[in-house]
Order: sequence, then C-alpha cells, then structure tokens
Amino acid sequence: MSSTTPGPRRAGELTRKGQQTRRRIVAAAADLILTQGVAGTTLDDVRAAAGVSSSQIYHYFADKEALVRAVIDYRTQTMVGETHEPVLAAIEGIDGLRAWRDMIVSVQRETDCAGGCPLGSLGSELAELDHVARCDVAAGMARWEAAISACLTGMRDRGQLIAAADPGQLATAILAALQGGLALAQIERNVRPLAAALDVMISLVASLAPPARPDPNS
Amino acid sequence: MSSTTPGPRRAGELTRKGQQTRRRIVAAAADLILTQGVAGTTLDDVRAAAGVSSSQIYHYFADKEALVRAVIDYRTQTMVGETHEPVLAAIEGIDGLRAWRDMIVSVQRETDCAGGCPLGSLGSELAELDHVARCDVAAGMARWEAAISACLTGMRDRGQLIAAADPGQLATAILAALQGGLALAQIERNVRPLAAALDVMISLVASLAPPARPDPNS
Repeated sequence: MSSTTPGPRRAGELTRKGQQTRRRIVAAAADLILTQGVAGTTLDDVRAAAGVSSSQIYHYFADKEALVRAVIDYRTQTMVGETHEPVLAAIEGIDGLRAWRDMIVSVQRETDCAGGCPLGSLGSELAELDHVARCDVAAGMARWEAAISACLTGMRDRGQLIAAADPGQLATAILAALQGGLALAQIERNVRPLAAALDVMISLVASLAPPARPDPNS
Repeated sequence: MSSTTPGPRRAGELTRKGQQTRRRIVAAAADLILTQGVAGTTLDDVRAAAGVSSSQIYHYFADKEALVRAVIDYRTQTMVGETHEPVLAAIEGIDGLRAWRDMIVSVQRETDCAGGCPLGSLGSELAELDHVARCDVAAGMARWEAAISACLTGMRDRGQLIAAADPGQLATAILAALQGGLALAQIERNVRPLAAALDVMISLVASLAPPARPDPNS
C-alpha cells in the first residue's frame, strides 16, 4: 500500500486528537466485548458506546477483525504492560508475590468476577475462528509468563529460592493456575477457586526457599 | 405444564429410538460448538450435521438455549462422568495421577489442542450471557473438582499424603491449573503449558508424601 492510498490509519500516523479518538473506540469495544463477547458486539454497538460516527470507526479500522485485534493489543498493553509487568518487576520476595495475589483477587471481588480474564476470554472465543487474533493473544500470554518468570528468577538469583527451582516451569504453572482460577471464578461468580489456586502456587514457591541458616548470633 | 401439553419432550419420556435421535442432535451440536462457538452455530448447522429435519430438532428442544444446555449436560456426562470420574476413582497413588496427566496431555496432542476444554470453553462463552448455562457449567466443574478431591483424600487416608495435606484446596488448584493449561495450550496450539502446569501440580502432590520410614530389615 503506497503512502497516498486512503484507508484506515495506523496508530503511529495519527494526530494527538486522532489517537485519543482511536483509543476511545478501542476502550469502548473492549468493555462491550468483556460482557457481550466478540460475536455479540456489533460495530454499531461500539459506535454508540464510544459516541462516534460510523465513518470515524472506519477511518481507524478496516473492519471488525481489525478492531478486535486492536482490543487484544489494548488488553495486553493495559493489563500486562501497565499492570502486571511493573508489579511483578518490583517484587522483592514472597511477601510481594502474596501482595500480587491479593491485588488480583481484589479486582475480581470488586467486579463480582464478571468477564473472567479480559485477555484469556478473547483467546477462548477467538482461538478457533481467527488465526491472527489467536497468535496475538498467545504473544500477550507469553509476555505475562515472561514477567512472572523474571520475578522468580530474581528471587532465585537473590538466594530466596533454591538453585534447583525452575522459574520458567513455575511461571507457566502459575499463569495456568491464574487463568484457570479466573475462568472458574467467573463461572462460579466467586473468588474462591482463584484464591485457592494462587494460594497453592504461592505456598509452593515459599516451599522452595532454602533452609534457614543458623543465626551466628544465637 | 400439564402432561398433555404438546411441546419439547424430556429425555426421560422418549422411546429408545427417540433417545438415540436426541443424542445424535446433541453430539452434533457439541462438535460444532467446540470449533465454531455457541454464537457461530445455528440450529440449521446442527440440523445439517445431525441429518435431521428442523421439526425433529424442535420436537426435542424448545429453542437454541435448550439445546445448548443439553450440550453442557452432555459434556459434563461424557467428559466428567464417563471419563475423569472413573479414572480418578481408580487412582491408587502418585503413579496413577501421572497416568491421568498423560491421558489428558495425549488427548490434546492428538487434537492439536483445538477447542480447549469442551466444558470450560462453554463456560467462558456463556458466563455473561446465560445465567442458567453458567450455573450448569459450574455444577459440572464442581463435580470434576469433587472427583479430584476424592482421589487425593483417598491417597491421604491410605497414608500416601501427610495428614496436613488439604485435598479440597489442592483439588481446586489442580482443576484451575488444568483449565488454565488447556486454555493456554489452545491459544498456543501446543501442549507445553498444559504439561508444565500438570507436572508442577503433581510434583507438589508428590512432595506431600510422608517421609519414608527406615526399612526395619536394613
């Protein structure tokens, strides 16, 4: 496509006002999809919720698929990039991991477990229907898993976990427990399964602490 | 509704041939929904796949919602009732749990991780849209969790797990890891996250074995 071809604009080419409008459309679509699903959300629903015209939506997105991919990118960026990555990067030990667990459970309690994981739910709905969307969700999950793994690697490197601990495998299992816990909590409308799953995983990490060395002052 | 009111028949009132037709419709709907989702599956798709007429479908199901609920019941019955419950009930120790893990991973490998968990995917798609369907999926998950819990309780009662082990909490965490592992495997089209999540959970159960007693013959 030459630079003079008319058509949907990429985010990087937009003015500041254009970026704000585009983001308002994506955020409105993300909210609607969380409660109605992708299949149950029309571009007309998004137009009404974002307070824009149809031509404005088509100015930014070629079709619904393009908007849905922008929603996946938005969920990855806001949830993984702006929330979990910085929180996990700041964790200094097992207490930090427990605070991360508390943050996740609190968010679900406040929203009555509605919607499940905003990124995981998109993956579940689109995995068999849209190859590109599936790969985009997989990339978001890989980023999330890498952030958990980096947190655990840091704990191991600081001597808070035994050398035999496998941060990569533990991170995969913790992300799976988190995803499954969110899904079960959504189905049950109760944080119970999410809290139990994360508590078991954190107990497991705590059990991988090296034996306490005898206090030389005692 | 009086017994003379015409309308969809309940499964218990059907002749043997009627039960077979009903089951063929439900199985066809279950297969279609696994790959196309509930929203992407029409009664006409089901009619064509099951090789029945529209009037036959409406003879058994008042509407699509009723058919979807029958699919949830079918998934719970075939997957939990006829597969996981008997396998879990026959487990005698940690090796049986490892064989259960291998069975789950093999099934996903054979199907290239398509569809994720047939019951969990229904829960994810319907949780915000159909209250009755959500409760039905929750009941299926509760049955699954109870089967895992009973297996671990048996291991504890036989002295294969320490008395402090909590079969209920462990079962919740294992089901969450299984659900999340299936969802991540579907998104990644690779059994890696499922295998890692179950391996970590089974290592955890293995770590709860009581310390070996010294051999009196040595």
